[in-house]
Amino acid sequence: MTVNSRPARPVILGQNQYGKAENRVVKITRDGATHHIKDLNVSVALSGDMDEVHYSGSNANVLPTDTTKNTVYAFAKEHGIESAEQFGIHLARHFVTSQEPIHRARIRIEEYAWERIEASDANAQFTGADEVKHSFVRKGQEVRLTQITYDGSSWEVVSGLKDLVVMNSTNSEFWGYVKDKYTTLKEAYDRILATEVSGRWRFNWTDDEQRMPDWEKSYEQVKKHMLQAFAETYSLSLQQTLYQMGSRIINNRSEIDEVRFSLPNKHHFLVDLEPFGLKNDNEVYYAADRPYGLIEATVLRDGCEARIPEDLTNL
Amino acid sequence: MTVNSRPARPVILGQNQYGKAENRVVKITRDGATHHIKDLNVSVALSGDMDEVHYSGSNANVLPTDTTKNTVYAFAKEHGIESAEQFGIHLARHFVTSQEPIHRARIRIEEYAWERIEASDANAQFTGADEVKHSFVRKGQEVRLTQITYDGSSWEVVSGLKDLVVMNSTNSEFWGYVKDKYTTLKEAYDRILATEVSGRWRFNWTDDEQRMPDWEKSYEQVKKHMLQAFAETYSLSLQQTLYQMGSRIINNRSEIDEVRFSLPNKHHFLVDLEPFGLKNDNEVYYAADRPYGLIEATVLRDGCEARIPEDLTNL
Amino acid sequence: MTVNSRPARPVILGQNQYGKAENRVVKITRDGATHHIKDLNVSVALSGDMDEVHYSGSNANVLPTDTTKNTVYAFAKEHGIESAEQFGIHLARHFVTSQEPIHRARIRIEEYAWERIEASDANAQFTGADEVKHSFVRKGQEVRLTQITYDGSSWEVVSGLKDLVVMNSTNSEFWGYVKDKYTTLKEAYDRILATEVSGRWRFNWTDDEQRMPDWEKSYEQVKKHMLQAFAETYSLSLQQTLYQMGSRIINNRSEIDEVRFSLPNKHHFLVDLEPFGLKNDNEVYYAADRPYGLIEATVLRDGCEARIPEDLTNL
Amino acid sequence: MTVNSRPARPVILGQNQYGKAENRVVKITRDGATHHIKDLNVSVALSGDMDEVHYSGSNANVLPTDTTKNTVYAFAKEHGIESAEQFGIHLARHFVTSQEPIHRARIRIEEYAWERIEASDANAQFTGADEVKHSFVRKGQEVRLTQITYDGSSWEVVSGLKDLVVMNSTNSEFWGYVKDKYTTLKEAYDRILATEVSGRWRFNWTDDEQRMPDWEKSYEQVKKHMLQAFAETYSLSLQQTLYQMGSRIINNRSEIDEVRFSLPNKHHFLVDLEPFGLKNDNEVYYAADRPYGLIEATVLRDGCEARIPEDLTNL
Repeated sequence: MTVNSRPARPVILGQNQYGKAENRVVKITRDGATHHIKDLNVSVALSGDMDEVHYSGSNANVLPTDTTKNTVYAFAKEHGIESAEQFGIHLARHFVTSQEPIHRARIRIEEYAWERIEASDANAQFTGADEVKHSFVRKGQEVRLTQITYDGSSWEVVSGLKDLVVMNSTNSEFWGYVKDKYTTLKEAYDRILATEVSGRWRFNWTDDEQRMPDWEKSYEQVKKHMLQAFAETYSLSLQQTLYQMGSRIINNRSEIDEVRFSLPNKHHFLVDLEPFGLKNDNEVYYAADRPYGLIEATVLRDGCEARIPEDLTNL
Repeated sequence: MTVNSRPARPVILGQNQYGKAENRVVKITRDGATHHIKDLNVSVALSGDMDEVHYSGSNANVLPTDTTKNTVYAFAKEHGIESAEQFGIHLARHFVTSQEPIHRARIRIEEYAWERIEASDANAQFTGADEVKHSFVRKGQEVRLTQITYDGSSWEVVSGLKDLVVMNSTNSEFWGYVKDKYTTLKEAYDRILATEVSGRWRFNWTDDEQRMPDWEKSYEQVKKHMLQAFAETYSLSLQQTLYQMGSRIINNRSEIDEVRFSLPNKHHFLVDLEPFGLKNDNEVYYAADRPYGLIEATVLRDGCEARIPEDLTNL
Repeated sequence: MTVNSRPARPVILGQNQYGKAENRVVKITRDGATHHIKDLNVSVALSGDMDEVHYSGSNANVLPTDTTKNTVYAFAKEHGIESAEQFGIHLARHFVTSQEPIHRARIRIEEYAWERIEASDANAQFTGADEVKHSFVRKGQEVRLTQITYDGSSWEVVSGLKDLVVMNSTNSEFWGYVKDKYTTLKEAYDRILATEVSGRWRFNWTDDEQRMPDWEKSYEQVKKHMLQAFAETYSLSLQQTLYQMGSRIINNRSEIDEVRFSLPNKHHFLVDLEPFGLKNDNEVYYAADRPYGLIEATVLRDGCEARIPEDLTNL
Repeated sequence: MTVNSRPARPVILGQNQYGKAENRVVKITRDGATHHIKDLNVSVALSGDMDEVHYSGSNANVLPTDTTKNTVYAFAKEHGIESAEQFGIHLARHFVTSQEPIHRARIRIEEYAWERIEASDANAQFTGADEVKHSFVRKGQEVRLTQITYDGSSWEVVSGLKDLVVMNSTNSEFWGYVKDKYTTLKEAYDRILATEVSGRWRFNWTDDEQRMPDWEKSYEQVKKHMLQAFAETYSLSLQQTLYQMGSRIINNRSEIDEVRFSLPNKHHFLVDLEPFGLKNDNEVYYAADRPYGLIEATVLRDGCEARIPEDLTNL
């Protein structure tokens, strides 16, 4: 292709990326009779010198999405899966460094946790082990997330979680708000506060591959601090709770500079039982679906740049 | 309405039922500072003398579905929620005994489990408690189910669960099957066996309200035996595993006479890494979505009647 | 295996079936430049002499679910897909007649409709055709369903649909119902009536393969009569509308003896705008999610047996 | 609150917004016996001077999310719903101009299309109308989307759609791509090309309220051009098709400057029927779920700024 083949265009191409999404890979590691499991959903998105495939359909610069899928499975064997973050780093580095037209790789990973199944008494007595070493039940709580972006010189790692449902059955109030002509809400001095946490946090690690964070430990600690901040905040608004959750993470985890949350207010409305001659003393609630309050904010280490986008994606 | 108002009809009414489905009720019980939570999704279905509402639209025998909703919330206050089963029994009895045209009530309940959030060290030191007594995180594993049916004289209680995902990473084979002209499958001597358990079990309790099973303990024990049977069965087919799961429940729980499972075979296919010069020694799997094998069967105490229908409903 | 290998068991096997579920098959038929499409999701369930695979894990009588999948794809080529019903009949017959241990085959099929994409003026002028003959957009309205069951001697065909959302914005009332101590609902003399139709209808064709119904025409006519009955019934209750829908099908389609509907009452609540000094004259509604009334009933040709089960499955 | 109450913080607040999401509003307009319907799902997100609610829980600047819900319903009455875009403009203007602490309002709307139900012959004869004037069936194809953002001085309107599934059964090839050590894909010279279109387009209208685009006509035309471009492009890659779709919109619709698509490649794999002695001449396909290629790109009018973010949200 010569430059001549591309006439002046009234319509031009902007940001673009492509790759294979949602590659479901399960890796079993056998340590004698004891098996370990990593269960991931890996999505690859590549950008770079891709104008021609859009303008003329020439695939000369296009590594097929099918190849990116194959690479995910081959790397699970070649590099193992130490953590989702480390696995994403291997993949992103590979695509950018092995293919000249690819200038940026973004790897998104969902991880599903499993726990071991306890052995029956008879089996435990026979095997001498409390657990069946190759048997697992999916934990089913939150989905762990990470996104690795590499442009050939520096890294951005944003990890997170979604689908973590939490509730405080007291220690939440809501009053003192603005009232306009459309306001009918009654002030509340003891309400349920519940949300389904979707959170993302950005690591300040960008380039020194000899000094990466301990990704597994970091995740566990962040989740712990987030849950504890939720539980221990006496809340005057979900915004205040959100800020406390982000703040506690940043104050306790020096590897993290930025946190963003999207917190739907899962309303639990006190049911009016008076028509039936009953008093509802903060006991019986109706858990509503829609609509729901939606509170979104970024919490930052002072002096750091905000880079997580406003809209958290589902994947 | 007189009998005369109903002419001979070429088209007649068969089985019918109505009620309010998916009433989401959350009950908080305060034991001092310690709160307890029950989180249910309750569906009511009533049948009886309901021909006229279908034929002429007369609602003279119809208790509104809105009233059945109100009753769910009022009963959460009046009777509390000791267990999903006990709560369903209160509701079913009420509808059948309080309304003459209602001859049968069926209550279906989904229950979502929660666990407590651990306190931070500082908080634990301050409060002297390891957990925040009013803070919960949804467990997120299986959904617990029950269905109570009452016809005015006897009870049928079928409990169960869905969405419980389990996996054995070895001790599963599949060979020696029928081969016809459309068979291409290779025999397997060491494969992953994974499924998402949907199970229902029927109690033999039918009428003596002074001698009900301990519903909470029964559920925990059934789940335990089911998981252990899954883990401890060396499996030559998912059917064999299913039978062992049902069998272990019936042999260990005298209150249960019948179990039915619907077990999708969540296929984990060994990825062919040979094109990349790699050996896949039962390490790297592709977790497939569709299609999936689907194994369904009833397991019965000998001499007992099978009453759980072929198709397990999602609710 | 000898008979001796099966001791007296305190636990026995009940109804059971197995097969490959959700085989997604798309068939393109090329009639010159004009292409036709059939887009199905086919699930196979086989029963018969399958005790041993449950008791001992012997697969000697088991045709692999993988083979049933292969058969679906091979039959799409060998027999074509004239209609979902006809395709299911070919499959069911094959499994029962070709494998001695298989005594019953049940084929469930979902079908997704597509419509053609109109050509641009320039293209239409150039090709002389108003449509692009190989281009389709998924219609996206209801999902068409069928279930074929064959036991070696007679057939049962139950067809249906799901996900068809309909609404009357007037001509619906609800009053004159039973009032008990939990009743708070106000009577309504002009309300929205909306539902998401899930329906199944059973054909009286059972064995004469020379005189099958015209499956495609039958489906179109049933859908038409159902929609018209919904629209044209002045409704005093959703039960009355349901009966009219079933009745109109049976009165107009002699090939059908039984219809069952599961109709969620998709509540549209009139919003109270009085606090804002506005009058809501049946104009502004809140479309609620949960809970919802759920009305289920069978409508039968007089003298015919009811065979469709109480719970309609989602698949 | 004085400035003193806010000490120097190591952790600061970044971008934030809040509001009520997914307000389901249905508006019926009665034109004599003929009813018209608008069915929307409206989400409100407000930003501005909201630091204190995060830092201290003071709600002094917070208009409750419940009030934003009430406003949606009240505005459906006060302003009617001419189009989703116009309705969003009314709402956004109101929040920013009526509340001093609110500096930006973003309104997102989903719209569901309905079509009329045809009358039966008898009814048509009686009423003289081919359609029942108050009866609707949900169209069920794509979901229409719009997002209105207003900062008090200028507007940004981005409209779009999702869930539109399209397929070309021929006129698609894929070859000439990069091959590395992980590439196993065979080149294809006649394949199915199918995708589920998610698209967003930005209007260049920003401020002159007397000269807005005709939102309803614009939507219909954009959808038409997009479908025709998909159908009429002989495709060497999904990227090329995407560019043609965006290009045709921009070339035909002067009110639009930017389009972004997220196009999953819904793979339809040709089934290998050779093991069964059958030839598959581009007839029988397996429609796969995951993984899928994912192609995303922005197409721009030359000289215009790209403002639609990389990740299209689901809502």
